[in-house]
Amino acid sequence: MYNESGKYSVEVCFSPLSWPLYDRSDAVVVITDIFRASTAICAAFHNGVKSIIPVAEIRESEEYKAMGYIVAGERDGKKLECAHFGNSPFNFLEPHLKGQTICMNTTNGTQAIKAVAHGNNEVVIGAFINISAVARYAMTQKKPVVIFCGGWKNRFSMEDTLFAGALVEQLLAAGRGEYYTSCDSAIASADLWLLAKGNPLEYIEKAAHRHRLRRMGLDDIIEFSLTQDFTTVVPVLRGTEIVDATSAGA
Amino acid sequence: MYNESGKYSVEVCFSPLSWPLYDRSDAVVVITDIFRASTAICAAFHNGVKSIIPVAEIRESEEYKAMGYIVAGERDGKKLECAHFGNSPFNFLEPHLKGQTICMNTTNGTQAIKAVAHGNNEVVIGAFINISAVARYAMTQKKPVVIFCGGWKNRFSMEDTLFAGALVEQLLAAGRGEYYTSCDSAIASADLWLLAKGNPLEYIEKAAHRHRLRRMGLDDIIEFSLTQDFTTVVPVLRGTEIVDATSAGA
Repeated sequence: MYNESGKYSVEVCFSPLSWPLYDRSDAVVVITDIFRASTAICAAFHNGVKSIIPVAEIRESEEYKAMGYIVAGERDGKKLECAHFGNSPFNFLEPHLKGQTICMNTTNGTQAIKAVAHGNNEVVIGAFINISAVARYAMTQKKPVVIFCGGWKNRFSMEDTLFAGALVEQLLAAGRGEYYTSCDSAIASADLWLLAKGNPLEYIEKAAHRHRLRRMGLDDIIEFSLTQDFTTVVPVLRGTEIVDATSAGA
Repeated sequence: MYNESGKYSVEVCFSPLSWPLYDRSDAVVVITDIFRASTAICAAFHNGVKSIIPVAEIRESEEYKAMGYIVAGERDGKKLECAHFGNSPFNFLEPHLKGQTICMNTTNGTQAIKAVAHGNNEVVIGAFINISAVARYAMTQKKPVVIFCGGWKNRFSMEDTLFAGALVEQLLAAGRGEYYTSCDSAIASADLWLLAKGNPLEYIEKAAHRHRLRRMGLDDIIEFSLTQDFTTVVPVLRGTEIVDATSAGA
């Protein structure tokens, strides 16, 4: 949506539950789930994975495995029985995955993709590790931007909100002033990012999910997941697959 | 809910849509809608109103009017035809209302009350103008606290979030350390309040609803609505009516 001054709006949706309020058919929709699906997907493409097929049901993962696909997936931090590995970003950096297609089981991610993939929406997977590439790619699209935070069990999540705020900051600072926001959740995200950006790792110490990860022994990914611009890949949805918009084959 | 250390949890629900994630039956639930129903209700009790009957339907307001009640209400900032006055807090400060029962039409407020009024919940109406009284009252209840932000058309609202953050700050600072939070939205609210508290009026300039109010010519209430501790009343739900918990008759 243009406002009076011909700028594109930037909005932030804090929870999948709120998506119907932000849904539109003409936007770049940036889906994020920092801990950990979106960081894992970006890591995979950085590693040269060809494509990722997101699925929500264990049965689907089993079917893809039977067809010979590499299968990744977990439930509550535990690897699915049928999966070759879980959803830790580090698993997706293994050299043997280069050029492969991976079937990734991610309940929330798959539901988010289904909710946003319609009309002329351009669906992008964003994480701190590819944030500047996502911002640059969004700017080439000449569309409003909606940032879709995966949250934790539909609740507001600090780490996803900080990513949203960092992306809002980059878009609003864009050279030609193409973007504006009148969305309170976008303003709040950017202000929280201002508080956190000096030391995101320290700031995220107070976030609830960070403590859940520690209890589950999964917190080895936190520092990596908060690292900005580790990669320049831009995972985008094409049909039912995710591919890297910056690679020659996309 | 007690945590391991025997403290009560403090949580913040950013939108009525998210309420099912925060719903419980053993809490003090503080409902807020700073611009403007909750500020108006607190102003009314400060003025000595006896009770307020919240209703959602215009038909109900008409029925109460036919029974001789004073009727307040509006839709999108315009006074209802059947109402004696709209929902501006200033209307509720008129001297002739002292001792009266007012039927107040507030769609969101009535829906919020219906959603939270069950079990052993203690339903409290909170606003900046009675915030310290609400904090003190909550502490007497020996229960978890959930702050229910009315939002704007189910969206995250900056002004309600700042109130939530200010109340979280007061509860967590409570003398005997009765409260804790592991709720990301409570932490975010408190951090946003940290940014805003030096000059809430200036901070709220960036909030979307503040601009909506200005466009509708309804922004005369903003400074008053952000004034802390104008009153010590504590509106609470008793059956289908709201009364002042600090008055002798409550």
